[in-house]
Amino acid sequence: MSKKIRVGVAGYGTIGQRLADGVALQGDMELVGIADLAPTLSIRALKERNMIGANGVEYKLYLVDGADKAQFDALDIPVAGTFEELCKSVDIMLDSAPGGVGAKNKANYYDKYGVKAIFQGGEKNSVADVFFHGYANYEKGLGQNYLKLTSCNTTGLIRSVDALDRAIGLEKVAITIIRRVADPGDYHRGLTNALQMEKAPTHQAVDLMTIMPHVNATGILVHTPVTHGHIITVLATAKDGKKITKEMALEVFNKHPRIRVVTMEDGFKGNASFFKYARDLGNRRGDMYEIGLWADSIVESGNDIMYAINIPQESVTIPETMDAIRASMKMQLTREEGTAETNKYLGIGKFKK
Amino acid sequence: MSKKIRVGVAGYGTIGQRLADGVALQGDMELVGIADLAPTLSIRALKERNMIGANGVEYKLYLVDGADKAQFDALDIPVAGTFEELCKSVDIMLDSAPGGVGAKNKANYYDKYGVKAIFQGGEKNSVADVFFHGYANYEKGLGQNYLKLTSCNTTGLIRSVDALDRAIGLEKVAITIIRRVADPGDYHRGLTNALQMEKAPTHQAVDLMTIMPHVNATGILVHTPVTHGHIITVLATAKDGKKITKEMALEVFNKHPRIRVVTMEDGFKGNASFFKYARDLGNRRGDMYEIGLWADSIVESGNDIMYAINIPQESVTIPETMDAIRASMKMQLTREEGTAETNKYLGIGKFKK
Amino acid sequence: MSKKIRVGVAGYGTIGQRLADGVALQGDMELVGIADLAPTLSIRALKERNMIGANGVEYKLYLVDGADKAQFDALDIPVAGTFEELCKSVDIMLDSAPGGVGAKNKANYYDKYGVKAIFQGGEKNSVADVFFHGYANYEKGLGQNYLKLTSCNTTGLIRSVDALDRAIGLEKVAITIIRRVADPGDYHRGLTNALQMEKAPTHQAVDLMTIMPHVNATGILVHTPVTHGHIITVLATAKDGKKITKEMALEVFNKHPRIRVVTMEDGFKGNASFFKYARDLGNRRGDMYEIGLWADSIVESGNDIMYAINIPQESVTIPETMDAIRASMKMQLTREEGTAETNKYLGIGKFKK
Amino acid sequence: MSKKIRVGVAGYGTIGQRLADGVALQGDMELVGIADLAPTLSIRALKERNMIGANGVEYKLYLVDGADKAQFDALDIPVAGTFEELCKSVDIMLDSAPGGVGAKNKANYYDKYGVKAIFQGGEKNSVADVFFHGYANYEKGLGQNYLKLTSCNTTGLIRSVDALDRAIGLEKVAITIIRRVADPGDYHRGLTNALQMEKAPTHQAVDLMTIMPHVNATGILVHTPVTHGHIITVLATAKDGKKITKEMALEVFNKHPRIRVVTMEDGFKGNASFFKYARDLGNRRGDMYEIGLWADSIVESGNDIMYAINIPQESVTIPETMDAIRASMKMQLTREEGTAETNKYLGIGKFKK
Repeated sequence: MSKKIRVGVAGYGTIGQRLADGVALQGDMELVGIADLAPTLSIRALKERNMIGANGVEYKLYLVDGADKAQFDALDIPVAGTFEELCKSVDIMLDSAPGGVGAKNKANYYDKYGVKAIFQGGEKNSVADVFFHGYANYEKGLGQNYLKLTSCNTTGLIRSVDALDRAIGLEKVAITIIRRVADPGDYHRGLTNALQMEKAPTHQAVDLMTIMPHVNATGILVHTPVTHGHIITVLATAKDGKKITKEMALEVFNKHPRIRVVTMEDGFKGNASFFKYARDLGNRRGDMYEIGLWADSIVESGNDIMYAINIPQESVTIPETMDAIRASMKMQLTREEGTAETNKYLGIGKFKK
Repeated sequence: MSKKIRVGVAGYGTIGQRLADGVALQGDMELVGIADLAPTLSIRALKERNMIGANGVEYKLYLVDGADKAQFDALDIPVAGTFEELCKSVDIMLDSAPGGVGAKNKANYYDKYGVKAIFQGGEKNSVADVFFHGYANYEKGLGQNYLKLTSCNTTGLIRSVDALDRAIGLEKVAITIIRRVADPGDYHRGLTNALQMEKAPTHQAVDLMTIMPHVNATGILVHTPVTHGHIITVLATAKDGKKITKEMALEVFNKHPRIRVVTMEDGFKGNASFFKYARDLGNRRGDMYEIGLWADSIVESGNDIMYAINIPQESVTIPETMDAIRASMKMQLTREEGTAETNKYLGIGKFKK
Repeated sequence: MSKKIRVGVAGYGTIGQRLADGVALQGDMELVGIADLAPTLSIRALKERNMIGANGVEYKLYLVDGADKAQFDALDIPVAGTFEELCKSVDIMLDSAPGGVGAKNKANYYDKYGVKAIFQGGEKNSVADVFFHGYANYEKGLGQNYLKLTSCNTTGLIRSVDALDRAIGLEKVAITIIRRVADPGDYHRGLTNALQMEKAPTHQAVDLMTIMPHVNATGILVHTPVTHGHIITVLATAKDGKKITKEMALEVFNKHPRIRVVTMEDGFKGNASFFKYARDLGNRRGDMYEIGLWADSIVESGNDIMYAINIPQESVTIPETMDAIRASMKMQLTREEGTAETNKYLGIGKFKK
Repeated sequence: MSKKIRVGVAGYGTIGQRLADGVALQGDMELVGIADLAPTLSIRALKERNMIGANGVEYKLYLVDGADKAQFDALDIPVAGTFEELCKSVDIMLDSAPGGVGAKNKANYYDKYGVKAIFQGGEKNSVADVFFHGYANYEKGLGQNYLKLTSCNTTGLIRSVDALDRAIGLEKVAITIIRRVADPGDYHRGLTNALQMEKAPTHQAVDLMTIMPHVNATGILVHTPVTHGHIITVLATAKDGKKITKEMALEVFNKHPRIRVVTMEDGFKGNASFFKYARDLGNRRGDMYEIGLWADSIVESGNDIMYAINIPQESVTIPETMDAIRASMKMQLTREEGTAETNKYLGIGKFKK
């Protein structure tokens, strides 16, 4: 039996916590530890659970530079070591530190200790060798030292666009992102009784073109005062004037393990329904790895197809990050195998008939 | 000098109040009276102002069937007569009664007394001879007895689509409506921390095709928890594969008196900015008759053009309703003349260079 | 070893799901089954998990009168029997059916089969022998056939008021309830950009006096457009002009297993922080059984004490309902023993030093 | 006939615009000009109206230090001069510049040119000779050079507390402020699906004691995601154990010109109803000068009285600022005369029977 890949997580915030959970669930990976700066409420919650995270795994805590160990001691929070020590003990680091810190970590530690790293959307593209998406360009990440994940909206969007493109061939997409403005528990970036525009084209369209350069993409983003998931409408045009019917699109979406096709009629009335459903499922943190796609939102516009998806912003990038580990570490050599392993361990796609 | 057209308003709610104000501002019309059922807060506010509405005009109150005059007497609210009496005194009635009541009013009074009527979006299309939009099909309304206005979203949307179509020629549009779920002051139809989907295609696209049958239209609507105006993104495709550039679109929009072209850079950051600006203008009720259009939202998608507009839902249909009076009463015989008169009296387009 | 108490749950909605989870966690109770009418999303989520709920317990589904079994069959949802069959198999039923249905269930089944029942806040007080709160009047419920739980706000409020009263002796309380208007996932009862008043005095104050008749209570309730927990400010006056200091109050609150004393300084900035913390804890559904109480909200007003608490509306009544089973079934004969057993099985109070 | 008092307004933001409108309505004052730094949307709106503000008065624009006149020229916005020139032309300045700037203005100009000034709530108390409220301590402001107004919540709160105190005699008050978190049109300080606490006691209680030192005050503040007015619940205790009945309180409130007593039953269901009502009244900007007070919120708590008020945050301080001018300039020598003149010109209290 092969040795488990040793993984660390830098930054135990909204994304970092879920990355740690994701790794804890992968049968072929070992969560060596997590790293953070201060005894945040998330760290205190972990302490209240005796440092036991998902899947019964102990989450060992390492402190990054600048952390004051005395603060942790005062709260009886056990500390396993320094971030440098963590770096020396892992094969690969999932870097979900605040924007900009990842680049410093790379310069100070990853390069030095030959640790590979997967960066989240907050870092600049230049920090990584490849801008990565598990389904769209898995092979590009094979063996690379530094990958950067697409952001939450782009990750979910590409799942559906890549699926259509592989099945039918796309020329272009035009998107409208109806963005949730804050996460549950945020107080610092809310919006009250207002829809806020962002200058077009929105960066998610630009990012999509970086990953899928053969597809033209543009779009408009509007921030809305909600917390439970973005909604994106997509208008997709096939190559060569080919018509995409509703049936064709549905067939493609139904096959994708990371797309949950639902209907408003069944009760999925909006973005909050997915969050409620995930809670009713008993999912840890009420998270969902799949994007939602409303079958009864799909309409034909001439030859083009239009549809709406729901992006669970807190957890949607976790599967593709697991894929990134698999690609970077060459655990599986094809997108089919890599994503299948991730899906198996995360329980993704089980609900599909 | 010609006699003024005598106009009544049935229903003094959100739309009815603004219709009355609109008529009061038309130099060639006389507001004979308004009609309602109960001493609502809006009626009480009118009473507090001694029944004086916009432009110093007295708003005489008539009671519809079923009203209890004693309730008005108890509050010292002067009553001028019955709805039937109002019907007998006007040339045309603006019917903004609750959905379904307009059809009854027509059967009971308008037909009987030969009163023309303009119905709002809540009535069924069958109540009217023509489904009307001041810019898109003014001539169809000429001399007709019963017109029905498009709803707020459709009215604003068509302004921009009709303008592009007349200048360039359109084949189709695909829209995403980011809908405000309630009006300021509503408690009965809110939405809290949720985006709610509606089955596609949304009715506004279908309505657009009724008014502009040569343009294919479809779209998706999402309700959002805000009160100050809808935002619609529009993806427009020209006929015959013609390209629409950003410059072409901007030129068209800049010329339209009822489209206010703005930029995020100047401070129009979202839907609430228009409401604030209208208040800062000192506009009555903080209303705005123009739709907003963000120049920095316009992007090209291949040959197509994409842009975002803001719809001030409470007041946007007022100008087109004034146009409808003009068409129905044959006050002006062309869309250019009809809309120009409305614009003049409402002060629309003055800010254009 | 004694036999487990057999418990059923009628209605698998927001409260019913959590009651089932609560029972599944009690080592001395057996969840015989749950009952519902239609294959709601909550039932479908259960099916997606192969009918396995909390603690690895299978949740057997029984259908209430009027249910269409064919709907469940079409979705491959296993059905264990009828509600009547469930009634015959349990010692006690937790009735969380929609308001009014509980009274019918009592008349049709509970009386007939000698099944005891605990009703939730939606039923009228007259349905039960005792209006019950685990800490405030446990002994009144001993051996009674029908108990009714206080509603979520009252349950949480009484925890703190009863604690002060037992320690110090209270004369009166005046409360301001800042109420969350909807639950996460609700679309039917939202509120958008408005604070809605309710006629004073609010029913929670009246209910408190029913449970604690020696304390005068009144208050005002305001609905707010949020979903994650009510906040209540309480102004408490001691008997006989005695002064309550901040230290006295803190000592009382710190001792209570179902009150989680926190500070804004530590990051508990508002109601959403508790929800986030519960998710970070990995709690099922992101639920929390304790109410929150901000130490840095406590202020003295002359001799009186004022403080603010947070009520997690979806889950707060679960512990007191477990207490109710214990009282009704005489599993423990004192409030100290009854609540201690509930707390032990639900893991309540472990975080206390 | 006496000469009009010459008034300037520094800062044309949310408060400054309304101060200018307020002065324009005072028959015994002259609005010499307004001053600002940049061509904000509010300034552009003024330009769109040809610099004509409330009451047909021209608002002449002066530029503060650091302003770039070229920006104004580019937009054809007429500039009347510098802030220093404005200072030299007025008797008194209403300083509604951003917090801290007022103190600099005082040091640089007001002291130098012997201009009196009224500062808004954002400045430190030390900037002024007297912390002022028109009803509570008018006489303290008589002839003083520098007054500072109470903030919006405190201004409205004191109206009701001072009225009770003068009529009955108060010992203490305990308040719960349910605060609107942003103004309409704000994007920078929203809150989404959260209630945010602030450390107790809230500053409004402390401020109240500064103005009314013989009354003990404390309280808790909670921010809520709405824009149309704060709601405050007040628990007031009379001196010497005297009982305050609901009838006594109502009589006091009904007499106060700046308190609008309403009922939920009449349709004033919450804070948004006042805003809607003001718009229906046709009030400029939809503003209201009175606070609202719900008669059906008033409840007795033993000998104490509890009630809820609504504070229209954008406009509530305008009348008391006019009072401040009157006191500082000794235009009227008693609170009764001073407030009466303000009320007359602003049309306050006319709706009272």
